[in-house]
Amino acid sequence: VRVAVDAAGLEPGHRVVVEGVLKALDGTVASKIPLNPVIYGPAEILRNEIEELGGSVDSIEIVDSPEVVEMHESPREALLTKPNSSIVRAVRDLAAGVVDAFVSMGNTGAVVGASRAYLGKIRWINRPALGTPLPRKNGMGFMLDVGATPDPKSGHMLQFAAMGAAFVERVYGIENPKVGLMNIGTESNKGDERSKDVYKLLSRSPLNFIGNIEGSDLFGEKADVIVSSGFVGNVLLKFSETIPSMIDQFITGNDLSGNGRLKKFDYSSYGGATLLGVNGNVVIGHGRSSSSAVARAIEWSCKIVSGNLENALREKVFKTRRAVLLTNPFVIGDGSDDI
Amino acid sequence: VRVAVDAAGLEPGHRVVVEGVLKALDGTVASKIPLNPVIYGPAEILRNEIEELGGSVDSIEIVDSPEVVEMHESPREALLTKPNSSIVRAVRDLAAGVVDAFVSMGNTGAVVGASRAYLGKIRWINRPALGTPLPRKNGMGFMLDVGATPDPKSGHMLQFAAMGAAFVERVYGIENPKVGLMNIGTESNKGDERSKDVYKLLSRSPLNFIGNIEGSDLFGEKADVIVSSGFVGNVLLKFSETIPSMIDQFITGNDLSGNGRLKKFDYSSYGGATLLGVNGNVVIGHGRSSSSAVARAIEWSCKIVSGNLENALREKVFKTRRAVLLTNPFVIGDGSDDI
Repeated sequence: VRVAVDAAGLEPGHRVVVEGVLKALDGTVASKIPLNPVIYGPAEILRNEIEELGGSVDSIEIVDSPEVVEMHESPREALLTKPNSSIVRAVRDLAAGVVDAFVSMGNTGAVVGASRAYLGKIRWINRPALGTPLPRKNGMGFMLDVGATPDPKSGHMLQFAAMGAAFVERVYGIENPKVGLMNIGTESNKGDERSKDVYKLLSRSPLNFIGNIEGSDLFGEKADVIVSSGFVGNVLLKFSETIPSMIDQFITGNDLSGNGRLKKFDYSSYGGATLLGVNGNVVIGHGRSSSSAVARAIEWSCKIVSGNLENALREKVFKTRRAVLLTNPFVIGDGSDDI
Repeated sequence: VRVAVDAAGLEPGHRVVVEGVLKALDGTVASKIPLNPVIYGPAEILRNEIEELGGSVDSIEIVDSPEVVEMHESPREALLTKPNSSIVRAVRDLAAGVVDAFVSMGNTGAVVGASRAYLGKIRWINRPALGTPLPRKNGMGFMLDVGATPDPKSGHMLQFAAMGAAFVERVYGIENPKVGLMNIGTESNKGDERSKDVYKLLSRSPLNFIGNIEGSDLFGEKADVIVSSGFVGNVLLKFSETIPSMIDQFITGNDLSGNGRLKKFDYSSYGGATLLGVNGNVVIGHGRSSSSAVARAIEWSCKIVSGNLENALREKVFKTRRAVLLTNPFVIGDGSDDI
């Protein structure tokens, strides 16, 4: 598997990315699937860092991408003015089939924007969604969107639900997964206008919709797939990532640092968020990732590649849309033209 | 202080409410401020429970309110069809000045709706907001809205910010409190359309606006007042309330139950959420409150009464609106007519 890795964007700097690539090469995945990493960034600096860290320059390809999309930059402008940035180069190579997957810890908006522009959306899908695994007592949950589409229409969220169900079936092996809508009450009349509308759409769909869930159900077992707007999902995700340090902060005197269970809260141990809905395998890691998190993200991208997700997503969204539209082809809230 | 307490709505039943009232009467607040609780609910049952629990029927007034607004009921219909419910009766008594404050653990939508209908909004304030204390390492933070207005316009959120600042100044004694906007990135161009709009409004305001904050800053020190839509605030609040049980679930083998710091996560220990923007002191507790939480909510309502909040809120919102409008009286996004 040829995985493009974005060396730019990560806050701690290139070195952490290079360390992550070396760890992934040493790791367990490499023994099962041959991994060929391709790092996109400033070639000279990267070559030096690989050698300093004891890696072999021959085993890691480098594509010189001198321009950097900074974290605070407007994605739109960055994509237009920096054609030689690592993000644009890597996504174009992914589109061309030169690499099989792309892993970035950089500007999420720029990665999503470049993916929409150069990979294109999967047929029947109007907006991409970023999905993230959720820790829970047994197995794993999945939430989408967590930031690709902050302000979706209700029809987009129906598509998120279908994509999430297809993902969870394919990757976690959960049959007929339970789909829950993140809302502010369990009753169908709760929430903002969008939520009420999505509730109606999901009720008419062939998905296994279990109704509204609340913030308290985020790490629970009620739903296998949690559907939310990118805004709500992102805020929840970022808050939940602070739980380990919060525990340290509030509960002093208990040595929890060596407790393996704490890792359950650390999303990086699952490999990052997956961009669903574009023609290509894109994994977005956290901007403050450690080298181990970078390695996990690379390993995760290998898993996604072998999952052949695109067909599953397209088929599930198509069938879901069709079923909902056949129940009532005309009046379906403000998202009617976007189902 | 005469405090109306809603005996209905609480999921564990009347008894917990009665226990809470008795605890509040025994508690510390009662020794400083004379507390006169008035319980609204089925008189016969309540009288029996007070006696069974060893309380004196003479020290606790009861207003017979046989109808109950259930948690799953539509607030609109409940208010129209149940004029003898505890919520409607208590709010009407609050409006008439018969009681000084109202504490309910019932249907939030019904309490907010009844408050808007019978108390009316404070002048210059278009939408009420529910504010909740946030635990943090030093002192206390405050977030609003957490559920009274799920889908506010940007102008409403400017008012939330001003109300939150006034509350924190008056109740926590923090001068010129830092106001942060809950968003999905720190840059001004991040978020959905509403967030971008609110960012602009807050930037033009005389409030001490420190910019966007993210989910990871919820329990941090960056902002004293966190402004969010009722939808986002509610989801965050409900998720954060699960942290204590999550810690139990994931970290076994560490006896944390006796650790006082864990209580920091338990909102009920702060006394519940305060409804800001209506002419009257209304405190809303959690539907799954313990009797101690009910007692805290009653004590909290006494504190609010002595704070004389209404004038402070009105003045702060008036000054904030005026300052923003004077910078640009016409074009201020979609919330222009609601500032």
